[in-house]
Amino acid sequence: MHKIILHEVGPRDGLQMEKETVPLEFKIKWIQAGMDAGIDIVQVGSFVNPQKVPQMADTDKLCAHFMQPGMKPKAVILSALVLNEKGVDRGMACNVEMFCMGVSASETHSRKNTGMGISEALTRIIAMAKVVQAAGKKVQVSVQSAFGCGYEGAVPEGRVIEIVGRYLEAGVRAISLADTAGHATPDRVEKLFAALRQLDDQVECACHFHNTYGLGLANCYAAMRAGVGYFESAFAGLGGCPFTAVAGGNVCTEDLVHMLQHMNLRHDVKLEELTRIAADVSRFFKRELLGVVYNTGAIP
Amino acid sequence: MHKIILHEVGPRDGLQMEKETVPLEFKIKWIQAGMDAGIDIVQVGSFVNPQKVPQMADTDKLCAHFMQPGMKPKAVILSALVLNEKGVDRGMACNVEMFCMGVSASETHSRKNTGMGISEALTRIIAMAKVVQAAGKKVQVSVQSAFGCGYEGAVPEGRVIEIVGRYLEAGVRAISLADTAGHATPDRVEKLFAALRQLDDQVECACHFHNTYGLGLANCYAAMRAGVGYFESAFAGLGGCPFTAVAGGNVCTEDLVHMLQHMNLRHDVKLEELTRIAADVSRFFKRELLGVVYNTGAIP
Repeated sequence: MHKIILHEVGPRDGLQMEKETVPLEFKIKWIQAGMDAGIDIVQVGSFVNPQKVPQMADTDKLCAHFMQPGMKPKAVILSALVLNEKGVDRGMACNVEMFCMGVSASETHSRKNTGMGISEALTRIIAMAKVVQAAGKKVQVSVQSAFGCGYEGAVPEGRVIEIVGRYLEAGVRAISLADTAGHATPDRVEKLFAALRQLDDQVECACHFHNTYGLGLANCYAAMRAGVGYFESAFAGLGGCPFTAVAGGNVCTEDLVHMLQHMNLRHDVKLEELTRIAADVSRFFKRELLGVVYNTGAIP
Repeated sequence: MHKIILHEVGPRDGLQMEKETVPLEFKIKWIQAGMDAGIDIVQVGSFVNPQKVPQMADTDKLCAHFMQPGMKPKAVILSALVLNEKGVDRGMACNVEMFCMGVSASETHSRKNTGMGISEALTRIIAMAKVVQAAGKKVQVSVQSAFGCGYEGAVPEGRVIEIVGRYLEAGVRAISLADTAGHATPDRVEKLFAALRQLDDQVECACHFHNTYGLGLANCYAAMRAGVGYFESAFAGLGGCPFTAVAGGNVCTEDLVHMLQHMNLRHDVKLEELTRIAADVSRFFKRELLGVVYNTGAIP
């Protein structure tokens, strides 16, 4: 019924806030295991300034490693986040297959994150997306803070729809709505994705939820109710800042797959492989992580 | 749109597995605070053998306390669980307003829990429900393990529908489906509650989910999609056995209310009061509990 696509963003969104730098060999091991488990797309990192985000400094190496012949299953797509033109050049140089990029629907978040307002950032992202598409690469554009912003609070739906409209006009149809702050509730998720469908029935919607307030899986289900089958999630529910009261991790990959499999979907994915990755990640960071199923095991 | 009813089962289902006995004064404080916060129904305990479940030994005292004139807001209903005829007598003696009782849809769970098979237990429960109704009291009947069983695995939907049919035949319309093991997934929740509606459009459905595999709030949303607005939940997500790998707590009351309020429902409930209860419960047990919002605070 639903075509489900799993985009593992743990190596990027899951790790970028972690203070302890993960050695390249661990990243390779976790990414490899995710590919072997049956994940469709893996976001290995982001092409940002290594001085600013040391955790992402090895993104070029990771891409180069997995793009060597025979180093990944052919069906698996390697993605990376790019923030600017320099990132696009780096991604091209190491042959990454899919470029992810986006703008925030919150003016404040956009300025804090990129130094640009929404309008300027959007123009720039659209230009980048066109370059990437022209080069024959896959591109996914996102709207960050699509369901609310930690700085601004509520984000008007109209603003999200306007940004998506601009993406569609530019000929980019793979669009992700990211709930950066974890403010989404399932009713609004259904409503907003339904509105996107109305804009263009060829739009390929992805959803990217954070579990800050425990609503991640409820929001994933709501997205499915609106016809969305493309999920971005992170192993062990990693993500967000571990040093604040608000442990705003991503939706946990293995918990999501567990739910999907008990909804009779994606039985091809090896859940046990995924829980083993989560357990290994937990051992690496020497703490309990937010995922549930790697602790409890699956429903028997 | 939705009429929402909140039934706090923390003092019963939340506490019954806790080894450390909670003094009467703490229970009174937590229950009082829940009533003040705007909870509609509070399940104060169960009329079971105090030797077998010492944590529930003060249920009669709690009922008697809150049924004194002026000790609770008039709109709040006091409920308790009864397992047998003796429990009904005790409930009548201390004037409890609502009697909750049920049978399991799993033969194994039924026998382990009551020493009776489903059929015998059902006959007995229906007879008890009629006695309670005849005495002018409210009654709610439930189907436990309605979405799967830790012993038997999958539970056929047909069996749940059959039990509900028997309840309806007997003239009992307040029916709760309890996911005792936490096996429910949102698709099946929608399907099963929709099927119940088809049996009788006057049925008053309640849902009772456990968060064992992280699916509690997703299941609550799915129940809402099927027209259910009556939720049973426990403060701080308490419940289940804390000494196993599977921390199968109830859906957390304050997390549920938080979700509902961000869906523009039940703004009358004082969320901050509820998070204060959860924080106090956490201090009492000297451990972090499963609720999220008592730690993070609400979405700003």
